[in-house]
Amino acid sequence: MEFSINDLKFMKMAIKIAKKGILRTPPNPMVGAVITDGEKILSFGYHKYFGGPHAEIVALKKLPKTNKKLNLYVNLEPCVHYGKTGPCADEIIKSPIKNVFISTKDPNPLVFGKGIEKLKKSGINVFVGLCEEEAVYLNRVFFYNQIFKLPYIILKWASSLDGYIADSSFQSKWITSQNSRKIGKKLREEVDAVLVGVNTVLRDNPNLDRIKENPPRKEIYKIILDPEGKTPLNYNLFKKGKVLWILKEGIKKKVAENIQVLNFPIENGVFPLKEILKKLKTMEINSILVEGGGKTSSLFLKENLVQEVALFFSPKIFGGGIKNISGLDLNLKSAIKIENYKLRKIDEDFYLRGLICSLELLKQLAK
Amino acid sequence: MEFSINDLKFMKMAIKIAKKGILRTPPNPMVGAVITDGEKILSFGYHKYFGGPHAEIVALKKLPKTNKKLNLYVNLEPCVHYGKTGPCADEIIKSPIKNVFISTKDPNPLVFGKGIEKLKKSGINVFVGLCEEEAVYLNRVFFYNQIFKLPYIILKWASSLDGYIADSSFQSKWITSQNSRKIGKKLREEVDAVLVGVNTVLRDNPNLDRIKENPPRKEIYKIILDPEGKTPLNYNLFKKGKVLWILKEGIKKKVAENIQVLNFPIENGVFPLKEILKKLKTMEINSILVEGGGKTSSLFLKENLVQEVALFFSPKIFGGGIKNISGLDLNLKSAIKIENYKLRKIDEDFYLRGLICSLELLKQLAK
Repeated sequence: MEFSINDLKFMKMAIKIAKKGILRTPPNPMVGAVITDGEKILSFGYHKYFGGPHAEIVALKKLPKTNKKLNLYVNLEPCVHYGKTGPCADEIIKSPIKNVFISTKDPNPLVFGKGIEKLKKSGINVFVGLCEEEAVYLNRVFFYNQIFKLPYIILKWASSLDGYIADSSFQSKWITSQNSRKIGKKLREEVDAVLVGVNTVLRDNPNLDRIKENPPRKEIYKIILDPEGKTPLNYNLFKKGKVLWILKEGIKKKVAENIQVLNFPIENGVFPLKEILKKLKTMEINSILVEGGGKTSSLFLKENLVQEVALFFSPKIFGGGIKNISGLDLNLKSAIKIENYKLRKIDEDFYLRGLICSLELLKQLAK
Repeated sequence: MEFSINDLKFMKMAIKIAKKGILRTPPNPMVGAVITDGEKILSFGYHKYFGGPHAEIVALKKLPKTNKKLNLYVNLEPCVHYGKTGPCADEIIKSPIKNVFISTKDPNPLVFGKGIEKLKKSGINVFVGLCEEEAVYLNRVFFYNQIFKLPYIILKWASSLDGYIADSSFQSKWITSQNSRKIGKKLREEVDAVLVGVNTVLRDNPNLDRIKENPPRKEIYKIILDPEGKTPLNYNLFKKGKVLWILKEGIKKKVAENIQVLNFPIENGVFPLKEILKKLKTMEINSILVEGGGKTSSLFLKENLVQEVALFFSPKIFGGGIKNISGLDLNLKSAIKIENYKLRKIDEDFYLRGLICSLELLKQLAK
């Protein structure tokens, strides 16, 4: 169907206010709701934090009494199930709302179309697909989680222009500028876990901590892929926070309380990454920032497990050293493509953030 | 000294009109001149083409009769020597100009300070250094040529995000988009010659032609570094235009009229690039676009002969293939740094253009 300029405006507003829940709603999606009489906004609301009231309920509660037939704009299909809160569809049906505009279906199998169906059955007009791309992008982690039952992976690297993350003497501190590194560290605030390979740990001895816990979120997991258990227990990342130490089957370690050991078999010389991710998903790890090094990043890409990239480039040429990615040898057609990316200069460096997981795919799968 | 806002404004205008000579003035510099009474512009001019009248002369000729004492703004020191035209300093001295503002000295040893001296001796006030950086940038090829007596080299590559110019099956057609390639080809209009290594020729069979000769310039040279003379004579680049075929000493070839063979010894397995460049400079080749491949680009970088880069990136990850640059193994401190660069998106690709030769260095050397 054709949507009006007003419809577009109100849905864009719903998406804008949905974003206010950023970092506080996961594993729930960010949702905003706007209620209008067709011309004027009468009420609005957003999902503020995980477990809190849904956007539609917040907006309905603030709605002034009226006899008019109202429109609701919401970027995700209203729910029909009892989760932390009651079903929104029921509350909408009881309200003066006559038309509901929805950006996309809720990919959660407990909802997936049932909310739309319920609204329609009660005589409400439902219009789906307004600002669909924007809405899928906003909740891409949630969509991916729901559809694939795996954590959403963001791959980060900081490299030279010719693709080296360290020079041949393994110096990587610091390729990029202080501000680039700061923005790189801020990425940790967006995810439930940070993951690195043992070589990076041994080389850099990172603490992998967040810079600050603002806005407050659940504690980040620090995950190390360390088949042989080579990381010394006095290393920085063991000192505080929740650590998942992934070792190969049979390797046992005595560890402090904040460290959890997970054992996985080594298959063809590498960890079964997908199995590990499935396990992590059961631990409510919905998003992971893979911070390298080259070998670990390459393995994730090779198994097609990366959905997004956050790449920092320093305007330097090394002409040798430790590669950001290797061992894939893809050809022009099979090469991994980055879509919907943005470029941004940071001091002398620049930063590319884009998607590997196609938004189009997520949209199709959520239909 | 402190320059006024007006001074700045007039000099910026001189630089702006100087740019109108782009691609037509080489090997002469781009120069613009603005004459004012301190408040209003009375006349202006620019150096239109090689051998044509200098900017100062153009502006003086258009100057209306006046009894006022005038100011001249010019982005390069007025000349004192007889070249294709008479010395500008003499004409300025005969004119009503009392104050001359100059961005930089002319690095040409025939001028280098002598113009300023002559003006001062005749009682004219001379102020040097206004918009110096912008002026050096504008004529960076000319400055480099004058100071180093070598052609100015622009290195171009089109690579994946992880630094591959071709996949491991040597496919490089085409990593970047049609528009990127078009902009890449337009770079050939900025230079006197295009240079490639034999591997690139054998792999891609390029014609290395300009897309169009507008604005008209002298014909471009196509240079191939081909020690063993492997390029078949029926290859595209031999078909038209002026070709310089650089072969190792002792290798002789029967060639068509448009092809000139130059023989150089091979030292430590490679051509003596600096010697080759010195020879090319004597042939009035003042600027060269090095279009790869990886080995040739790396050799130029290794010998510190590249002044500028024009890098096209396709947002793809190959994880293997033919590297853009290799065999340098520089460390964090010795890495080649790109300065004053600009980023621009072209369709899905992006383009980075920046300097390796420091503007600061050119400025210092021209003092």
